[in-house]
Amino acid sequence: MSKNYEYMHRAFELAKKGIGRVNPNPLVGAVIVKDDKIIGEGYHEFFGGPHAEVNAFLSAKESVEGATMYVTLEPCSHYGKTPPCAEAIVKNKISKVVIGMLDPNPLVAGRGVKILEENGIEVNFGYLCEELSDMNRTFLKFIQSKTPYVVMKTAMTLDGKIASKTGDSRWVSNEKSRAKVHELRNELAGIMVGVDTVITDDPLLTTRLEDANGQNPVRIVVDSKARIPLDSKILNTSDQAKTILAVTESADPEKIQKVEEKGNQVIKVKAKDQKIDLNNLMLKLGEQNIDGVLLEGGATLNFSALQSGIVDEVVSFVAPKIIGGAEAKSPVGGEGIELMKNAIELDDVKYEQLGQDLMLQGKIKK
Amino acid sequence: MSKNYEYMHRAFELAKKGIGRVNPNPLVGAVIVKDDKIIGEGYHEFFGGPHAEVNAFLSAKESVEGATMYVTLEPCSHYGKTPPCAEAIVKNKISKVVIGMLDPNPLVAGRGVKILEENGIEVNFGYLCEELSDMNRTFLKFIQSKTPYVVMKTAMTLDGKIASKTGDSRWVSNEKSRAKVHELRNELAGIMVGVDTVITDDPLLTTRLEDANGQNPVRIVVDSKARIPLDSKILNTSDQAKTILAVTESADPEKIQKVEEKGNQVIKVKAKDQKIDLNNLMLKLGEQNIDGVLLEGGATLNFSALQSGIVDEVVSFVAPKIIGGAEAKSPVGGEGIELMKNAIELDDVKYEQLGQDLMLQGKIKK
Repeated sequence: MSKNYEYMHRAFELAKKGIGRVNPNPLVGAVIVKDDKIIGEGYHEFFGGPHAEVNAFLSAKESVEGATMYVTLEPCSHYGKTPPCAEAIVKNKISKVVIGMLDPNPLVAGRGVKILEENGIEVNFGYLCEELSDMNRTFLKFIQSKTPYVVMKTAMTLDGKIASKTGDSRWVSNEKSRAKVHELRNELAGIMVGVDTVITDDPLLTTRLEDANGQNPVRIVVDSKARIPLDSKILNTSDQAKTILAVTESADPEKIQKVEEKGNQVIKVKAKDQKIDLNNLMLKLGEQNIDGVLLEGGATLNFSALQSGIVDEVVSFVAPKIIGGAEAKSPVGGEGIELMKNAIELDDVKYEQLGQDLMLQGKIKK
Repeated sequence: MSKNYEYMHRAFELAKKGIGRVNPNPLVGAVIVKDDKIIGEGYHEFFGGPHAEVNAFLSAKESVEGATMYVTLEPCSHYGKTPPCAEAIVKNKISKVVIGMLDPNPLVAGRGVKILEENGIEVNFGYLCEELSDMNRTFLKFIQSKTPYVVMKTAMTLDGKIASKTGDSRWVSNEKSRAKVHELRNELAGIMVGVDTVITDDPLLTTRLEDANGQNPVRIVVDSKARIPLDSKILNTSDQAKTILAVTESADPEKIQKVEEKGNQVIKVKAKDQKIDLNNLMLKLGEQNIDGVLLEGGATLNFSALQSGIVDEVVSFVAPKIIGGAEAKSPVGGEGIELMKNAIELDDVKYEQLGQDLMLQGKIKK
């Protein structure tokens, strides 16, 4: 492993410490190296907080003049909540900058690099590109589309069931898999379910991590007619996490008012085939700076989401057990596709073993 | 890697060359080593043929006196189709024998070792135990239970479907996965389907390997009432492979006669809930020396097989594609189990990536 790779990897690890706290801004890490020794480290810790480069400078106990900086994302060139990092790098007399990936914002890309080069700083690229863009996949989609990156999460038995014929689903996957789901909840800004899941399971949809330090996602319920029970946990825990009820014009105004009085937000979304228009919902969530959504839908909502094209990624847990039952449900239902050759395909498929369970992760081919 | 491990591994590789050809006898490989050099090799090539040890002696171009023999299975001690190998080893003045696994037949286990030791030959054990018993898993079950080792094979999409809602299943899994299925067909003595699969797909169920050198399994159709169409491929290709139709007393004798006239075998099996009693069928297949069965059943037969306890192993192919459809079938149907905690669990689960597909393989917990 080259030194360049090693330092960029350290910056990558630092960046990940901001998971769940910087949305919809990117995760960024930075490392300052002098004489083959790390003399400064920093990362983007929370939304609106100092950038990784600034934190790295602040942490340095010795002069950074002539040092090399490894930073996972191109240093910014514009005045936002903080002054531009590219200028700070120049001011601090860094002699070389190794950049993980360019700013994906086409209006800004390359500008940071230009400032550095114009000031005689050597700039290098090309380490960990895949890992870095993967880490910032919600940011990358959001900056370009203004709609959230949607991860559809499913868990099934080896015979493709999400529950037994009686609806029993405790538990399909093992503890390690379920812990992974809570990592996703911590990572993504929103979590979305259909109202039928609320009616059946009455879930809390908060994040439970081992270190008890997780961020709760905004809870989004797809509920065109506002059928949600007023005593659902999700409507009565606004102290723990925000809840958004997505309804259409057909929802009862009185019911909406009662939901709002409990401290929840109700947003009106266009209807499509008498259901929520999911593309319109994504635009509205984007307006609220929700850059990522974990879809923990039932079979019907999952199919609608796939069909409408809002899903970017699928994370599927497969448990090595068999429950059987012609009536038991599988992860994706709805109308379905007629021919196998027209199936929705995944790309960049990765596998991870979690105990005896298996996690498959892939991007929807678009 | 130790030399012992290396030579046993070579014997293991040799043994596997007999796959599909020695049933219901075991796969065995043997290597003769002198002065750190392999001077003889052999394996059990076909049912009733010379044993691995004998073939190894035959292949040696120099004296084997004082050499070490590595053999995957304890040398036999009884006169069967061939004279006992333990005696051949003594006669050939081998000085040391390294054995992969003991003969699983409790009436014979240890006898071969005893003959060797009584004749002053050093005997060692303990290399590749897991791989060797896995390779001979059909033999190991059959020698003890007189019923075949049953491997249930399924292929599904990432949303747990074996076909679209219209029944289209071409193809769920990719070419590499399908090639793997043909390896299983080559390996196992029998292949079993339900009559509905014959009616719907009219399959040939033969083995198609790349080198065109595969063994066709005996085709077994579960068909209590003899509903099979007389023009099915499976009934009209007795030149390619044997077909056994398993029926109950309720089958029409005239239809049975017509099936038999085409060169197929019909066996009458006990009924259970008006269906084939699968445990009774396994006994009858065992009587015909069928030591392994690949179950390529539909959802209903798969559940019956699991419920009756005849399944030993599950091989499941998962393709990273989504077809959706509340009406599309999943790999195991039938009545189903009510509670997730009572699901049938797998053990020793292994994963293999085949292109973008995934193969999961596990043993049913008993």
